[in-house]
Amino acid sequence: MHKVIFDTDPGVDDAMALLFLHRHPDIDLIGITSVFGNASVETTTRNALFLKQAWNIAAPVAKGLGETFNHGRPHVGWPTGIHGDDGLGNIDVPETIDLPLDPRPAHRFIIDTVRANPGEVTLVAVGRMTNLALAVREDPEIAALVKDVVIMGGAFDVPGNITPAAEANIHGDPEAADVVMTAPWPVTVIGLDVTTRTVMTRAMLVDIAERGGAPARLLSDISQFYITFYEQHVDDGMIVHDSCACAYVVAPDLFRTRSGSVRVVCGGIADGQTIQKPDARLFPPSPWDGLPSQKVCTGIDAEGVLKLIADTLSLSH
Amino acid sequence: MHKVIFDTDPGVDDAMALLFLHRHPDIDLIGITSVFGNASVETTTRNALFLKQAWNIAAPVAKGLGETFNHGRPHVGWPTGIHGDDGLGNIDVPETIDLPLDPRPAHRFIIDTVRANPGEVTLVAVGRMTNLALAVREDPEIAALVKDVVIMGGAFDVPGNITPAAEANIHGDPEAADVVMTAPWPVTVIGLDVTTRTVMTRAMLVDIAERGGAPARLLSDISQFYITFYEQHVDDGMIVHDSCACAYVVAPDLFRTRSGSVRVVCGGIADGQTIQKPDARLFPPSPWDGLPSQKVCTGIDAEGVLKLIADTLSLSH
Repeated sequence: MHKVIFDTDPGVDDAMALLFLHRHPDIDLIGITSVFGNASVETTTRNALFLKQAWNIAAPVAKGLGETFNHGRPHVGWPTGIHGDDGLGNIDVPETIDLPLDPRPAHRFIIDTVRANPGEVTLVAVGRMTNLALAVREDPEIAALVKDVVIMGGAFDVPGNITPAAEANIHGDPEAADVVMTAPWPVTVIGLDVTTRTVMTRAMLVDIAERGGAPARLLSDISQFYITFYEQHVDDGMIVHDSCACAYVVAPDLFRTRSGSVRVVCGGIADGQTIQKPDARLFPPSPWDGLPSQKVCTGIDAEGVLKLIADTLSLSH
Repeated sequence: MHKVIFDTDPGVDDAMALLFLHRHPDIDLIGITSVFGNASVETTTRNALFLKQAWNIAAPVAKGLGETFNHGRPHVGWPTGIHGDDGLGNIDVPETIDLPLDPRPAHRFIIDTVRANPGEVTLVAVGRMTNLALAVREDPEIAALVKDVVIMGGAFDVPGNITPAAEANIHGDPEAADVVMTAPWPVTVIGLDVTTRTVMTRAMLVDIAERGGAPARLLSDISQFYITFYEQHVDDGMIVHDSCACAYVVAPDLFRTRSGSVRVVCGGIADGQTIQKPDARLFPPSPWDGLPSQKVCTGIDAEGVLKLIADTLSLSH
């Protein structure tokens, strides 16, 4: 059983990932922490509460702070063209949800929960890395107490998506991401190298909606706007970035990884780019030396991952 | 017939590329310009003269200036462990060669030669991009008069070699490389994405030495030190980086390219990294916009390229 805190910015593909975590029998979702990214932190927090209510999820929701790790970073705007004005595909999410938030800020919730479950918590982070960076800065000892950190973000051997160099989650708070990648906890990075190969077709989503009951039908409704956006990039369907990170938690064998320290470029034209020094390669001394070796996903059994996601989303329980 | 100016820092694999250009029947080598990189510009110029004499090459040699495009860059040391103290594999190159240099600095030689042969000159650059950048800064009009620019350098969808981010030729003068990549002349970039797949084995080199006469035997002698260095990276043989760029000139069909503007990171941990914005991909506004679309090699018929190189080096004429 994997105890998971899901750090998320719902977000359409976040919603799918959340339903995956909620429904997978080997996952015990013990907390949801919100972060800005696909929308403002007010919107993503509201959306997390909306989905918690709609799907009857027991885990508490703790709200992130809503500012980048270095406060000086200029704000770059929300991707309303991808996730809708409401962050959930313009399905008319109610303005407020009548559910309580956890009283703690997200990073404090992470610290307390990790300390209460030493060696047992997997952090799955699929938005900006802000909350995780704040948590490990405020309490560096948690790095040794976390079981695993699984990130959706970055682009290693492929171009980025928000710029030719950078992927959006990392680009949105590069300093935070550099802290997370270089902290002494085990990180696995699921980036565009593999996520862009997992395209869920409209037909698959129709099937999930038919098999998976009302929660799956809501997910399908949320996803339509996002699929329309992706028509300019992929033939038919949606790239399920965030669900890939969740699939890794329960089925790491469906992924191929490369080990080596990871740094994030902060500033300049490559701002937010993720760069790994593969352990198997020799280099002169560099800023990658002396840092923890992390795992970067370079290969994926896309068909296997999509089947796992579809089957999990279709489970009623 | 391709009129070629070879901008080079011999350099072991440079020597092979020079013999290729000299011996290929479709190439008219009309000039050799020296640049620092594999050794100081004094050493690479001496080596260019040594090879001109040894191989009876008619083309004049013009010496580069020996400083980076932005003079403030710190010097990073010569890779004597790869190319030897003499830059040619420690074969005891004479200290001075009794042959005249062209009186002009390399970049002025490039300008004059391009202007004397409008639309006909291909620049093949396999060292730092310093000379080409100086030429196009001093006389921007030559950009429209050059037929083609073919570069060995960069790493796009693979890690670098001098750092995890950067390839050595570009890293050695990033500002120059950014000028060259963004100038309005047609550039093809042959980087580590493809060159690392072209490994010439010791056995192939023995065969070339047997078939190609005294010049090929000298090349084989020069190459032994470099092959020994590469034993830590490849199984048996040498990566023929620079010859790949020359092979592209006569046999572009052996390569697959991707079009898009290219920028070079200047400063920070990714200093010297090459990043392309593929034309086929959509991005928000970025520093890659409004620049010439250049070709980046992403695929190679390595067997075909190695055969072309071996056959050309073995020609006696």
